[in-house]
Amino acid sequence: MPTILGHNQYGKAENRVVKITRDGDTHHIKDLNVSVALSGDLDDVHLTGSNANCLPTDTTKNTCFAFAKEHGIESAEQYGIELARHFVESQPSIHRARIRIEEYSWERIAGSDAGSKFIGSDEVKHSFVRKGQETRLVQVTYDGEQFEVLSGLKDLTVMNTTNSEFWGYIKDKYTTLKEDYDRILATSLSTWWRHNWTGVDDERTPNWNKSYEQSKKHILQAFVETYSLSLQQTLFQMGSRVINNRSEIDEIRFSAPNKHHFRQDLSAFGLENEAKDGAVYWAADRPYGLIEATILRDGADQRIPVDMTNL
Amino acid sequence: MPTILGHNQYGKAENRVVKITRDGDTHHIKDLNVSVALSGDLDDVHLTGSNANCLPTDTTKNTCFAFAKEHGIESAEQYGIELARHFVESQPSIHRARIRIEEYSWERIAGSDAGSKFIGSDEVKHSFVRKGQETRLVQVTYDGEQFEVLSGLKDLTVMNTTNSEFWGYIKDKYTTLKEDYDRILATSLSTWWRHNWTGVDDERTPNWNKSYEQSKKHILQAFVETYSLSLQQTLFQMGSRVINNRSEIDEIRFSAPNKHHFRQDLSAFGLENEAKDGAVYWAADRPYGLIEATILRDGADQRIPVDMTNL
Amino acid sequence: MPTILGHNQYGKAENRVVKITRDGDTHHIKDLNVSVALSGDLDDVHLTGSNANCLPTDTTKNTCFAFAKEHGIESAEQYGIELARHFVESQPSIHRARIRIEEYSWERIAGSDAGSKFIGSDEVKHSFVRKGQETRLVQVTYDGEQFEVLSGLKDLTVMNTTNSEFWGYIKDKYTTLKEDYDRILATSLSTWWRHNWTGVDDERTPNWNKSYEQSKKHILQAFVETYSLSLQQTLFQMGSRVINNRSEIDEIRFSAPNKHHFRQDLSAFGLENEAKDGAVYWAADRPYGLIEATILRDGADQRIPVDMTNL
Amino acid sequence: MPTILGHNQYGKAENRVVKITRDGDTHHIKDLNVSVALSGDLDDVHLTGSNANCLPTDTTKNTCFAFAKEHGIESAEQYGIELARHFVESQPSIHRARIRIEEYSWERIAGSDAGSKFIGSDEVKHSFVRKGQETRLVQVTYDGEQFEVLSGLKDLTVMNTTNSEFWGYIKDKYTTLKEDYDRILATSLSTWWRHNWTGVDDERTPNWNKSYEQSKKHILQAFVETYSLSLQQTLFQMGSRVINNRSEIDEIRFSAPNKHHFRQDLSAFGLENEAKDGAVYWAADRPYGLIEATILRDGADQRIPVDMTNL
Repeated sequence: MPTILGHNQYGKAENRVVKITRDGDTHHIKDLNVSVALSGDLDDVHLTGSNANCLPTDTTKNTCFAFAKEHGIESAEQYGIELARHFVESQPSIHRARIRIEEYSWERIAGSDAGSKFIGSDEVKHSFVRKGQETRLVQVTYDGEQFEVLSGLKDLTVMNTTNSEFWGYIKDKYTTLKEDYDRILATSLSTWWRHNWTGVDDERTPNWNKSYEQSKKHILQAFVETYSLSLQQTLFQMGSRVINNRSEIDEIRFSAPNKHHFRQDLSAFGLENEAKDGAVYWAADRPYGLIEATILRDGADQRIPVDMTNL
Repeated sequence: MPTILGHNQYGKAENRVVKITRDGDTHHIKDLNVSVALSGDLDDVHLTGSNANCLPTDTTKNTCFAFAKEHGIESAEQYGIELARHFVESQPSIHRARIRIEEYSWERIAGSDAGSKFIGSDEVKHSFVRKGQETRLVQVTYDGEQFEVLSGLKDLTVMNTTNSEFWGYIKDKYTTLKEDYDRILATSLSTWWRHNWTGVDDERTPNWNKSYEQSKKHILQAFVETYSLSLQQTLFQMGSRVINNRSEIDEIRFSAPNKHHFRQDLSAFGLENEAKDGAVYWAADRPYGLIEATILRDGADQRIPVDMTNL
Repeated sequence: MPTILGHNQYGKAENRVVKITRDGDTHHIKDLNVSVALSGDLDDVHLTGSNANCLPTDTTKNTCFAFAKEHGIESAEQYGIELARHFVESQPSIHRARIRIEEYSWERIAGSDAGSKFIGSDEVKHSFVRKGQETRLVQVTYDGEQFEVLSGLKDLTVMNTTNSEFWGYIKDKYTTLKEDYDRILATSLSTWWRHNWTGVDDERTPNWNKSYEQSKKHILQAFVETYSLSLQQTLFQMGSRVINNRSEIDEIRFSAPNKHHFRQDLSAFGLENEAKDGAVYWAADRPYGLIEATILRDGADQRIPVDMTNL
Repeated sequence: MPTILGHNQYGKAENRVVKITRDGDTHHIKDLNVSVALSGDLDDVHLTGSNANCLPTDTTKNTCFAFAKEHGIESAEQYGIELARHFVESQPSIHRARIRIEEYSWERIAGSDAGSKFIGSDEVKHSFVRKGQETRLVQVTYDGEQFEVLSGLKDLTVMNTTNSEFWGYIKDKYTTLKEDYDRILATSLSTWWRHNWTGVDDERTPNWNKSYEQSKKHILQAFVETYSLSLQQTLFQMGSRVINNRSEIDEIRFSAPNKHHFRQDLSAFGLENEAKDGAVYWAADRPYGLIEATILRDGADQRIPVDMTNL
């Protein structure tokens, strides 16, 4: 048969692992969606159906839950590193493991006076509301020698209601767009960034949670502070801000759908609708401009796949 | 032909109306999804295809945008009341209008020092991030004589990591569930409540925005403060709290899918996984318990439809 | 406490029950999503948290699976009737059961010659592809005395590329829509119809599967054969066709979002784009006209709830 | 600033282009979702906000609609090739274009006798129902010298109700899975395949529509005819069948979530539930095994990105 097997991987996807930690009466939640993908000496399972080298996907699921109990979850990155190492180092036929994690955040419900009395304290300690803002992302890959850790986020929807323009572009025979000197700029950000930590030698491990919080802060502040002539310009500012402020990060990629807010034409009804007066907009669904870009530390390799920010 | 026309309504659904208000440099967002449904003298459009009595759905869309500009949007309730009154009072063939609105909330992005300098002030005034928590809901119905105003919310996901039990239930031949004295209670709340304001005579109009914030607060606090023996009990406490504290509300209905968090059995791996020690749970998707209930002020009519909380 | 409990119900929702029947080598699939909702003497579970009258939702789930094995699934209606009767008649505290079912259809994969040899026959007997068209719907309600059986479908997307007009409508100050004498009419139908069978006395039980197939056929044929002056007119024709041809059905309700296909204006590029020449259209998402109507057999009661077709 | 710009692209995504062709009274539908991504000399738009080299995403949208009218849509591949060539060859600053297309299929509604009379013919010529099965996929990339054409499909859900086993796998300390000698094998296939046509010299252009239909047929037949010891084995058979039968295709990649159907344990209720007797299964949502593999013609390069089948 003139066909050969190329890249392949398998594992259990979307394990919804929730770990509660009790610190006296004060509880903490880690709420993860964990996907395992393993590669290695797996030709037989494809070619003959022999599963002798195949660790069942069901076992990878069990391992995700057991590790949450045995090792806890300090950060999604740390937990992913431990899982990836385990699969590669415990199974001779598994040569590479990729762990992808989505993390959902919860915040404590603000207490009432009555509530405080009820629970015997000033603070609500085991009641939470899901935050509902961005989803935190992690991908850890381990090949037995080095780790690659990507962190990121998706579905962070932001809007500037002014300080955005778009003009001076190419006009060809199919161009009808009017230039705009005061438009809304809104997007739902997806982004991944790559840490330069590889787990080799005596590198210092990043503080993953702080790294995430700071990276997100820099992205938001660049969004606030950029007077935007194009969404591309804003993305480059966001990426540069992260690279320049976080020495542990070498590369960042964005996928930013332009969430169009079209100023509604109300002139047929005798109504002006200028941005400067506070306007009414139609928030459109499809089509949408989609802007994607990678920003790199000078000298760094480009390794985040082009399509990854859509996952 | 032995068939007759029963209840019917029509209109433009899901108009995504976004209104920016500029108060000097400080901007405000109202972000709505508005659906119009009109009824009246519309037999001909169904029976003969004559559209002489039919206000086009496209016109109802235009009206939503124009009203946002002409009258502003102080609250979704107030805006819905004005739209409903307009359709019924301006068109002889339209006898009843129902306006449904979803509202998405945004919060200001916290400013950095650099950002503050950039924008010439201590505060970020036109940059927002979508809050992503619950969606606020409004339904206004007007029949030319009275208004009915329902408010509510959906997708408010809450979790108590303890203080929930479930035991003492019926055991029949198909029962395998084990009793549980320390379980997670989580749900994604959908709820509508009915105001007793009808717009007739000299009734005082409620402060819609305050009414919403307070009702939500009472629901959350009842969730915090109820030591729960069943989700039904928790819902009744939530509803009672709202009715007892908000004199403008006579009826409230909940639809609460039990977002099951099953304690994972790790005994095969030699691991205990008890709630008291901080456990690992599997957050399941389907199936789920679905609990629905109406709570009423004594003497009030039950008017919120059974299936409405699923919308 | 001046609050009282109104309508309430509970049960396990979205049990994904798949039953394979083997008829020799020929297999058959029934693929259902079953939701149970029970009402009755349940005040205590809400007011005091006593579950003495509460059959756990987990038990209702087990019952769905066990009944599929014990009784088979001849039709979703028959299976729903048996479940509803069981809950009410086996539990004194349960006075009313409502079973909702979605059914997904599969078709056999067409065989190749090689395939036929492989499986030793001319026919592929255990290989299926999901059909992916409409979802079949059933709701059975039983109160201990009578049954009410609703059947229906959702997500049946149909399009007429001509024979649709829209003109002669009201023009008010907010009207900008142009009349159209050759437009696309497309919609994604949701519909429920009510059988007059109640299970009392010696009524003949309908052939549920044939009733469904014939009702769907009449709806589609009315769509084909109606030269449409409004979507309302088309819906009324669909409903009348069902009522007039199926004596077992007394009432039908439609919810039909107008899936707008806007003829693109290409005049800026020197291109005509007339319907008569075969045009290019933009298939829009939101907003959309939403048309809802009930059609009744003369003398029949209107019982299908207004909001039910959105479920 | 020590940051540099890496890979970037932009364009209008999800243009919903519907083209009706009228062949006398007989109409045809092409229903596409078209996404444009352009790369080239675009540093300035990122670094300075100068849009002098930027063709607006709005113009790329207009071009999609205009080309559908000017050139028609014989196949999504041909249409994508024309769009990609246009962007690169008409704009000096655009060096590479990638066009992604989803295509939705429609089938004619079967006519009734009455219908035939109504429309004056034996056939229903302008009435369609959306097929609802798989979505056809195309990606065309052009860099000014060569084309790369990928075709594929997603959401083709298939099930074998027998002839599938899984046993003989690794057992480690976290393994609890029982071996199974008669299980359901079901998956929702996503797949892309790469044509060896590059548009250079006098290569013969494939018949894109026939190539698609035949490739899909081979995939389905391999699914039918493979007695499966693992989903991996089934995927390899599918891919080999396509490569061996379609000389225009050199590479194919699959992403196949294992849609688990777990045989329900009914022993607590005294019920056996063996596969051989026709069993009842629970169709689970998450987690799920996810199996991904590339199959290549011997000697061909591996070019389809690992993450592409998730799009």
